Amino acid sequence: MVKVGVIGAGGRMGVAVCNAINNDSELELVAGIDPARAGSEIELNNASVTLSHKAELSALVEAGADVAVDFTHLEVALTNAEYCAANGIHMVIGTSGFKDDEIAKLDSLFNSSNCVVVPNFSISAVLLKHLSKIAAPFFETAEVIELHHDGKKDAPSGTAIDLATAIDEAGSDWAQDPTEVEILPSSRGAKVGSVPIHAVRMRGMVGHQEVIMGEVGQTLTLRQDSYDRSSFMPGVVLACKKVGSSEGVSLGLESFLGLE
Amino acid sequence: MVKVGVIGAGGRMGVAVCNAINNDSELELVAGIDPARAGSEIELNNASVTLSHKAELSALVEAGADVAVDFTHLEVALTNAEYCAANGIHMVIGTSGFKDDEIAKLDSLFNSSNCVVVPNFSISAVLLKHLSKIAAPFFETAEVIELHHDGKKDAPSGTAIDLATAIDEAGSDWAQDPTEVEILPSSRGAKVGSVPIHAVRMRGMVGHQEVIMGEVGQTLTLRQDSYDRSSFMPGVVLACKKVGSSEGVSLGLESFLGLE
Amino acid sequence: MVKVGVIGAGGRMGVAVCNAINNDSELELVAGIDPARAGSEIELNNASVTLSHKAELSALVEAGADVAVDFTHLEVALTNAEYCAANGIHMVIGTSGFKDDEIAKLDSLFNSSNCVVVPNFSISAVLLKHLSKIAAPFFETAEVIELHHDGKKDAPSGTAIDLATAIDEAGSDWAQDPTEVEILPSSRGAKVGSVPIHAVRMRGMVGHQEVIMGEVGQTLTLRQDSYDRSSFMPGVVLACKKVGSSEGVSLGLESFLGLE
Amino acid sequence: MVKVGVIGAGGRMGVAVCNAINNDSELELVAGIDPARAGSEIELNNASVTLSHKAELSALVEAGADVAVDFTHLEVALTNAEYCAANGIHMVIGTSGFKDDEIAKLDSLFNSSNCVVVPNFSISAVLLKHLSKIAAPFFETAEVIELHHDGKKDAPSGTAIDLATAIDEAGSDWAQDPTEVEILPSSRGAKVGSVPIHAVRMRGMVGHQEVIMGEVGQTLTLRQDSYDRSSFMPGVVLACKKVGSSEGVSLGLESFLGLE
Repeated sequence: MVKVGVIGAGGRMGVAVCNAINNDSELELVAGIDPARAGSEIELNNASVTLSHKAELSALVEAGADVAVDFTHLEVALTNAEYCAANGIHMVIGTSGFKDDEIAKLDSLFNSSNCVVVPNFSISAVLLKHLSKIAAPFFETAEVIELHHDGKKDAPSGTAIDLATAIDEAGSDWAQDPTEVEILPSSRGAKVGSVPIHAVRMRGMVGHQEVIMGEVGQTLTLRQDSYDRSSFMPGVVLACKKVGSSEGVSLGLESFLGLE
Repeated sequence: MVKVGVIGAGGRMGVAVCNAINNDSELELVAGIDPARAGSEIELNNASVTLSHKAELSALVEAGADVAVDFTHLEVALTNAEYCAANGIHMVIGTSGFKDDEIAKLDSLFNSSNCVVVPNFSISAVLLKHLSKIAAPFFETAEVIELHHDGKKDAPSGTAIDLATAIDEAGSDWAQDPTEVEILPSSRGAKVGSVPIHAVRMRGMVGHQEVIMGEVGQTLTLRQDSYDRSSFMPGVVLACKKVGSSEGVSLGLESFLGLE
Repeated sequence: MVKVGVIGAGGRMGVAVCNAINNDSELELVAGIDPARAGSEIELNNASVTLSHKAELSALVEAGADVAVDFTHLEVALTNAEYCAANGIHMVIGTSGFKDDEIAKLDSLFNSSNCVVVPNFSISAVLLKHLSKIAAPFFETAEVIELHHDGKKDAPSGTAIDLATAIDEAGSDWAQDPTEVEILPSSRGAKVGSVPIHAVRMRGMVGHQEVIMGEVGQTLTLRQDSYDRSSFMPGVVLACKKVGSSEGVSLGLESFLGLE
Repeated sequence: MVKVGVIGAGGRMGVAVCNAINNDSELELVAGIDPARAGSEIELNNASVTLSHKAELSALVEAGADVAVDFTHLEVALTNAEYCAANGIHMVIGTSGFKDDEIAKLDSLFNSSNCVVVPNFSISAVLLKHLSKIAAPFFETAEVIELHHDGKKDAPSGTAIDLATAIDEAGSDWAQDPTEVEILPSSRGAKVGSVPIHAVRMRGMVGHQEVIMGEVGQTLTLRQDSYDRSSFMPGVVLACKKVGSSEGVSLGLESFLGLE
């Protein structure tokens, strides 16, 4: 059993992570850190376990955690990383936005234990990008449609830009956009190289990405749908299991999925 | 049997129309007009029929045509309309782009026979618009994605603009676009009122339109796919059968489909 | 403001209904009945309201409820209906499985107030059926694909059978199934008349239904996606608002949506 | 320039193949064999080339063909293979249904030249299978939906069975079918191992295959659409270019696409 502690255990994502770990047969939830909720019980859906929120990172060492999962914010995560690295605890960081020098700092910290920084825990999203890169060289046109709930304030999504960039680079011979007359502006989307991104904002939806690629007489469509926050859980569980045997600091789930 | 003559019978669309009429049990193809091909045989896929192209509209009267289908160009079609109206022949015009004064002219011409001007013969496209208008009032967000082959030079398609306009007007309470930060410009598409249109240009595709509408926890998606030019044929056949009992000048297939 | 009481307020669906009513500007949540939770507070996400569960239906009259929403079971709902009818309270029943004689009993009960029995509160599902019936006469082939989470124990779904039945009856000229050689049995689905139903059971999914209809060279696809239980809420809210002006006992949301 | 001769050049597929080769800048169409049409001109859409059908395979040697493409039938193809192998001509065989002993016979024939037997020339279909196999291990449920025109007499399609077999074998931990109550028989499709296949027969459609795979909170959908016979052409052109540098007898396009 891999012993796991969760930093930021009290938010909605944190509670979901605690439950996912608690319900996996190879993982054991041993600590939940959330200073604001210290002393109150973690809401686990498995009646046989009770665990209360702790205020201090030292609870990780006390509980004998092998791995710490961090769902806080960038700056907090960097501070937490110092503690984990100093105490030989592997770390799974679910925060995005790390810059090169911050990754370098993590590199310098993690010597006796390992760390993985995961911008996207959705296995289907990671696969979508991986498969799209394999397919891209065989097609002459490719477009990305990303669809999100209508509470999302930025467009297009960072994940879609990353995806379109990867597709554009993986292809070698993209056809030119045939559009000569724009009857209405912007209908052809935002282009990343030769790959347009179309962003749909739709009440009721959650998070969805579609890649369409075309050749003479045929198209290939790859689509990933996330229906709720639980879509991140299989990736979190996987990362907790694999971080111990990766070395130093890794980026993304790709290597843990055997996709590199 | 309704006797039908085809004006512009020699082009690829014309040949397809001739065959569709020839193969319908309630219609009889009696004449094909194409001055450039006068005397040559129409390429019918039904071996039991032979018919040669005629140069003059008078072939319609000679053949006793009840209905003339016109797949020429706007100005030619208007001239042909004078002949048909003067000779009591109903007319199905498959040309788009008629302006109000040109429709008015048709109105003044057709007294003893009827005329229908059909910008889109695709029954599925006509239904897509009709059904979208019914559904629109029950949703708070709606977007249109139109996808065409990568030889199409204008974007978005005229049909998609017409569709988005109809949806926008049919809804009463569209939510505001949530986008506050455009990381890349144009990703949110071309807006017709509150309804964005996204245009995809994809090698291999033909003509496709998708409408997505959303409410709390649910979406409704309506999509029409045209796989080849034959998609227009059921609409042409329907128009030939129905134009005799419509009155005066009609616009679009909607009324013939019983959708108004 | 329409005053609404919820019977069966304590279950997951009940809590969601209480919140949907509480958050609508034209409705007021005045009572929640749940004998097992009597005295405990209803978990409302709107901090300005507190309301505790009641044990007895008499709480509806005490609170001056205009409408009672019932999310219990068939037999319980019938008993509750007697109380509501006797006290002039309109009733929205969200239970399915009512037989003709049970509907007849409701008919005899509701004289001074109204009742609507709603087997499916999803507005998109109701629309899917309505629109499919309009489109069916124009196509020669139609198939239904229903996709649900992999916890669903019956197949195909009752809603899909109802949908396929409606489509089959609405069409007049379905083509024959072309299948002559079944290489593997069952691949062509379960047929309702001429309309096959294919049932997909997929981890991650929630509830989704797709109708595909085809004619020469073209298809029309209508699809409804429910992403979570909240998809029922707009329908519940609508029913609470409209039941007061419907007359006697109604079946389904169709008439409230103006779709009949 | 690779010099290519086409055996079975006069059928609809043969003409399409001749044009695809003729229009590729690295290939030269040098001969078309079709005994029934000997002497008549091949219908090329490039006005600068004229070539007439030949009756005898010897035309391949006379024209200096490097590669012969064979779109005849299994038995004829085997005879043609003897001629090609004896004359050092590489061969691309587009016939399906070869049994192990027939492949063994091809193996014994091709010593000085190469041969590839291609059951499916659609690059998108080959990719669909390849990508599905990569993704399968990360999901717990998978189903295949294949959709074809309503002239197809067998179900499910051989390609879909091959696809479902590959997916079933690539996954390691498929969940059990949750269905306990079959309200109507056959709705859950034809199972290949743990992977159900659903076959849709739809007027207007051509050939389409969809793979859906699910994990907690998410799905991945891979879909391939063939819109017309031209979808095979990029695969035929690729095979003609690559067969010269493959060795002996190959099966399928996979290795030519660099996918093995």
